[in-house]
This record gives sequence, structure tokens and C-alpha cells, in this order.
Amino acid sequence: MGRVTARRRVIRIRDGAVGARPDTLVAEEPMEIRLNGKPLAITMRTPGDDFALAAGFLVSEGVLGGAEELANIVYCAGATVGAPPAVAGGGSNTYNVVDVRLAPGVPLPDIALERNVYTTSSCGLCGKASLDAVRTTARHAISDGPSPMRLEPALLAALPDRLRAAQQVFERTGGLHGAALFSAEGELLDVREDVGRHNAVDKIVGRALQQGLLPLSGTVLLVSGRASFELAQKAVMAGIPVLAAVSAPSSLAVDLAAETGLTLVGFLRGSSMNVYAGEQRVVLD
Amino acid sequence: MGRVTARRRVIRIRDGAVGARPDTLVAEEPMEIRLNGKPLAITMRTPGDDFALAAGFLVSEGVLGGAEELANIVYCAGATVGAPPAVAGGGSNTYNVVDVRLAPGVPLPDIALERNVYTTSSCGLCGKASLDAVRTTARHAISDGPSPMRLEPALLAALPDRLRAAQQVFERTGGLHGAALFSAEGELLDVREDVGRHNAVDKIVGRALQQGLLPLSGTVLLVSGRASFELAQKAVMAGIPVLAAVSAPSSLAVDLAAETGLTLVGFLRGSSMNVYAGEQRVVLD
Repeated sequence: MGRVTARRRVIRIRDGAVGARPDTLVAEEPMEIRLNGKPLAITMRTPGDDFALAAGFLVSEGVLGGAEELANIVYCAGATVGAPPAVAGGGSNTYNVVDVRLAPGVPLPDIALERNVYTTSSCGLCGKASLDAVRTTARHAISDGPSPMRLEPALLAALPDRLRAAQQVFERTGGLHGAALFSAEGELLDVREDVGRHNAVDKIVGRALQQGLLPLSGTVLLVSGRASFELAQKAVMAGIPVLAAVSAPSSLAVDLAAETGLTLVGFLRGSSMNVYAGEQRVVLD
Repeated sequence: MGRVTARRRVIRIRDGAVGARPDTLVAEEPMEIRLNGKPLAITMRTPGDDFALAAGFLVSEGVLGGAEELANIVYCAGATVGAPPAVAGGGSNTYNVVDVRLAPGVPLPDIALERNVYTTSSCGLCGKASLDAVRTTARHAISDGPSPMRLEPALLAALPDRLRAAQQVFERTGGLHGAALFSAEGELLDVREDVGRHNAVDKIVGRALQQGLLPLSGTVLLVSGRASFELAQKAVMAGIPVLAAVSAPSSLAVDLAAETGLTLVGFLRGSSMNVYAGEQRVVLD
């Protein structure tokens, strides 16, 4: 436990000065919620308060109404990684699978299985398994295109203003996430908005597929908020080589970027930015 | 279509001055993605680019790799609301159910059903059905507690700074959503952080359940970002009477608040805020 944060090496660019140092990131790992032993939902979360998270999820879904309906909550010791197949119960507990047991007499709801598709192929449930699942399902290799991408920090720094200028609905409501696709020269190729951060990226990628443009080699995807694992996953699956975010990345997003060769830029504000992975695509001298 | 935004009446408080006017909100409605006719996922989204959203989602999941694998995408005309039971295909198309058909020979993936639980009880799929689903599954009535809540705007205005001061991990990473529970007197009762916005609220509600404190009558829930339908749903399901957000609410969050009696405050910044529903709990004179 105690994995609320994680340390990763980061390259900081501040007003033209470049330095490397360790950075503290928010930890992100998958957690599976089971109800009376039956898998119900998987969510990406920051470890900690896991039993409260499971209980609160079930309150939101109308399954639990009060403490008297709850028998107990346990980590599933059987949900392990690294166990030899012949050793039942072997391996180490990932603390990523939680079983909520209802009090006797409380009816099990007739609810459908909620499950993020990318995790279905994982044995065990942990950050490593999530990374493996993306790698094994990826349909495209990340590619720079005809020539290696070499992005000037000044080019990256100019992108957030262009995204904001192109966000027509945000101007009127202040309530939308935005995503934009740029060429390696900083040309705006597409911009989409949605109340859901993942949806804005899905709309960008889906339009590219419809136009026969996948994989999106040699492009930069910019998102208006944080860079979570799932946004990094979407970039990788579409073959996008650079993901830039206005705000912070999670630990698992950085790990996925490092493993797949994705360039991940965070805290892109003014002339400052952090490069968390794939720095060969950024001009650093 | 063309429902990217929606208009709702809002009470604006600016430096002590109170006024009512129509406001433009980002539209939020559920969308079901089907694959060759089989329900696969439901997401809350802003209408528009629905086919691109569905295609991009399937790229992210590794189902689609290129345009040649896609036969076509259609709105399901059979997914209607308001149809008399005897009239097959009657009623009006909600444009909220999209069917993606793979090209001949493209294998159907073996993927589990991903479905948000709160929508399973809805016939049809639209914003109205989502509101009905919350109302019918709610286990607690929203309650002010022993005496009617009358919140001074100055009390509400002081809450975001208290949330931020209590967010220990955000200080170190800049990458977390925060949620805090306050008493009607502005006392901080609990604060939770998570890389996922819904998780922070689930952790608050789950701890309250574990401590036998549900329903959370007479409390204020503050969230660091936007107020989406699902966050409003979580407040309602826990019996929380006031939801305040630092940023914008969606149309469906406002509709749910208005229907259930939840007080919804948005754009809570400095001494300014907007009250979208339940204004009887805010002192406006």
C-alpha cells in the first residue's frame, strides 16, 4: 500500500533552460470491484481508501443503502501476480481486487457486468497487466512518419492557445474538455470537444479512421486536462507518437509511454513543460 | 441533433449582487455503442460526432484498425422513446444508440459487456431515462436535517480554499481531483483525492456508509472540477442536499438537481457563483 504517489524521472523545460530531475506523480492503478465474489466493475484509481471506494460505488448504484446491509469488504488474496500456475494462492497480493460482501438477506441486484474492455485479457490485475493488455492489442506501431519528429519547445508551447481558440463550445459554456490533433509542424488538423475527456479523443481518432488516416503517424495529440492511462492508451492505439497535456500525467500514463515509445509532455503552460517519456522527439539543446 | 448546448435559468451571485438570467450549458446525454447489433458500452457524452465517437472508441479497444474493417455506422431507429407498446418502430429516434457494423470477414472480438449500471433499468435511452433511473433506484430522500439549510454565499465562497488546503497529494503532484464534505456551518467533515473524479466522491460516500452516516443530510459536497450527471447522481444517491463545483455543470446534472431537489452551485470562484437549482438553500438577499 502507500502507493498514492510514484517517482519518475522528468525533463523540465523552463524558459529555454533544460534540466532532468525526479518528479512526484499521482499513482494510478486498476481496481476491480466484486460483489459477493462476482466481478462487477473495474476502475482506474489512486490506491488508498479502496474499501471506501468500493462501498461508495455501490451506494451510487443503489446496491447499498446503509452500513447494516454491508457484511464486510476484503482484498481478494487469490488475485495475485507472479504465481506459478501450479501453486494455488501463490504469488503476491496486488491489493487491486476488492470483494464486497452483502449482509445476509440483502438481495443481490440484477446488474450487468461493467468492465473496461482493455483489462479482460489480463490475468492478474495490476498496472503491469494494464500495460501488457495495451501492447498485445495494439494494431499499429507508433511511427514518426517519413522523417524523425524533432519538435521545438516553442512549437509545443504554442499549441494550447490554438486549442483554446478552436474550442467554440467551451467559449460559451466553460464546461467542456477539448482535444486537438496537430501535424509535426504545428498545423491544426482537427479539434473536438466533449463533456467527457475520453470522448473528445475518441472523436478525433474515430474521424481519422473514417477518413482512412490511421495510424496517425507524425502527429501530436493535445488534451486540455490531465494525461491519464486511458488517454495515453488511446494515443498508442491510434499510432499517435506525441501526447501533450496541459496538466499532470499519472504514473501509469508515464509507464505506458515509456514502454511503447510514446512521447509524453505534461504541464504544458506558457513556455514551460515537462517531458516524461520519448524525449528524442523534443529538441532539448 | 444540434444539441451541443442547452439553455437553463441560473441565479448569478457576483460580489453580493444577485441576478437571474438564462445560461448556456454544455449538453450531456447517454449514448449506447453497439457492435454488429450487440450492446457494448454506454457513455455520457455531448451529442455530435457520434459516429466518430463510436469508431474511435473501438480503435482504442483494438476492435477497429482501419477504415477497411468498418462496414458502416447507423443510428438505431428502433431505439426510440414514446412508442406505444403495440407500435413496433414507433416513437421518435433519440439519436442516442449507435450501431457499428464491421466489414464482412472481420472477426467479432470476444469482449465483455461494458455498461453503466444506472442505465440498465431504462427502456429507451435518453436524458429523461437517466433521470428516471436515478429516481427509481434512490435509497434515501434528500434532507436538510433538523432545520432548513440556509447557506450564506460567503460560506460557500470559502469552501474551495479549504478543499485545496486539505489536498495533500495535489500539493505534490498537481494531478488529482479532490472532493470534500462540509457541514451546513462550513466545517470540513472529510476530504478525499483520486486520479478519477468519480472515485474521490465514491470514497467520501463509502466512508460515510462505513461509519453509519448515510444519508448525509444537511451536508455540502464540493468537487474540484466540473459537475457532471454522474457526480450529481452520486450526491443524490447519498442523500446529500448541496453539490458545489468549482467549474461548470452539464445540462443533465442541472436537470437531475432540479428534479430531485438537489441544490447545485457551479463556477464557485472567489466571491462569485452560479446557482442552477435548489436556490431555497442559499441566502439570496
